[in-house]
Amino acid sequence: MCLPGTIEKVSERARTEGVPLLSRRSFLTAAGAAGVTASLMPSTAVARRIRAKRSMDLTHTFTAGFPVYTGNVPTRKTLVTVEENGFYAQGWTFEEHSGTHMDAPGHFVSGGRLVPELSPNELLVPVAVIDISNKASEDPDAVVTPDDLVRYEKRHGRIPKNAGVFMYSGWEERLPDPEAFKNADANGTYHFPGFGIEAVEWLLAHRSVRAIGVDTLSLDNGESATFDVHLTWLGSDRYGIENLANLGKLRPKGTTAFVGVVPWEEGSGGPCRVIAYS
Amino acid sequence: MCLPGTIEKVSERARTEGVPLLSRRSFLTAAGAAGVTASLMPSTAVARRIRAKRSMDLTHTFTAGFPVYTGNVPTRKTLVTVEENGFYAQGWTFEEHSGTHMDAPGHFVSGGRLVPELSPNELLVPVAVIDISNKASEDPDAVVTPDDLVRYEKRHGRIPKNAGVFMYSGWEERLPDPEAFKNADANGTYHFPGFGIEAVEWLLAHRSVRAIGVDTLSLDNGESATFDVHLTWLGSDRYGIENLANLGKLRPKGTTAFVGVVPWEEGSGGPCRVIAYS
Repeated sequence: MCLPGTIEKVSERARTEGVPLLSRRSFLTAAGAAGVTASLMPSTAVARRIRAKRSMDLTHTFTAGFPVYTGNVPTRKTLVTVEENGFYAQGWTFEEHSGTHMDAPGHFVSGGRLVPELSPNELLVPVAVIDISNKASEDPDAVVTPDDLVRYEKRHGRIPKNAGVFMYSGWEERLPDPEAFKNADANGTYHFPGFGIEAVEWLLAHRSVRAIGVDTLSLDNGESATFDVHLTWLGSDRYGIENLANLGKLRPKGTTAFVGVVPWEEGSGGPCRVIAYS
Repeated sequence: MCLPGTIEKVSERARTEGVPLLSRRSFLTAAGAAGVTASLMPSTAVARRIRAKRSMDLTHTFTAGFPVYTGNVPTRKTLVTVEENGFYAQGWTFEEHSGTHMDAPGHFVSGGRLVPELSPNELLVPVAVIDISNKASEDPDAVVTPDDLVRYEKRHGRIPKNAGVFMYSGWEERLPDPEAFKNADANGTYHFPGFGIEAVEWLLAHRSVRAIGVDTLSLDNGESATFDVHLTWLGSDRYGIENLANLGKLRPKGTTAFVGVVPWEEGSGGPCRVIAYS
């Protein structure tokens, strides 16, 4: 049901009756003039604790044209505008594995859990950032190895229980050029970093981890034709996150990420908001 | 770019080589047999604090057919399946104001901030639940009034700084029947609860609040033809959340909600994951 009369009324009222459609700039000026100070300290103990330090957004803006593994990129269109209709809204069409997004177990596992079946507690993970940017800059097929994990622990301590173990390869620098981000060779095989199967098997055998994440298009590296990491990790009833952002700016330990995945009905995964708080 | 050969290889390998495609049931059984215990206690201080108590999901599953104000409901389709293609994924098409979703200032305000412009700190709000379910059960046009806010504060203490003030009307009981959720009369005018303009003006004048939220389709009540609450609240550079879930199960104070909105490019708002932790 559409209510064009109603919407027209709003638009008309905004135009003719001086309804206060404050721009951000005018609002901030007005707030300043009125002596309004925006305290950033919420009042509950939990919020105080989180607010006490800082936050880091690990999510890329979800854009039309964001590179997608299958090549079918998201699209958007303007449906209505403030000027014409009294309010503004867009429509979106995309595959679930677009933008910064989750891979749920059911993405590769028949009968595996789908997005709405993951619990809120699973979406809160202490973060360990595994930096392989040095080797990735020399070898686009580089993978996280058990040695990388052991090296991390020697320097930063044991990977926390229920952690999200996130690979930082520096690959997001290529995101402005989708072809460079996918980095396909003449045969159409991609070349970008990912987790190696040995690292995943090491984590499953030796640590209690909730999620792995990468700053590239796939949990497996781009050249993988067998998707061993997807099959093994999702097959263990755990989830993954692809196309993470800003991992190079995040300290390697001591933060907790909220993985705000929209609970897409029967979702194999899907776009999410990931923010690390500390 | 599509890589059908690759995907076929995965599917083939899963079928013929015994790749461990564990179902959830078999995984849990295996984990139990191996003596694996999934500790729910993350190791950082922040996570310990959050985990110490509990969480409540304030998000409805994002479904095809979820009732939308304009009537244009989300749709989904299966693109590939594990059985046929080696992995499973869906495609989605929807308006930004579908499911549990944010209204950004720019939804009603020309030049107002859009979703990617909201800061991570704005997405973390201590929650105050304003229960108007009694009057809403008798009057579908009921609104949150200043008296409701004052009554809340007498009972639960002052609304916290930077709070999310969420209206609980009990309306989500009607969600299984989209027509009952919209509750349109013979003229097509909706009838469901929302915020009253006086309550919003009271909050702006007397408290420092980040967001308002409702368990119905609109920040204004359904019969509103002028959208005063949208215009005033979003016009103050603040955001709203519509179609919140489970507010009747959440305690009225002492929780902090993470508003995990996907950063939709130039988004007027859009689907988000909202979870309250305490």
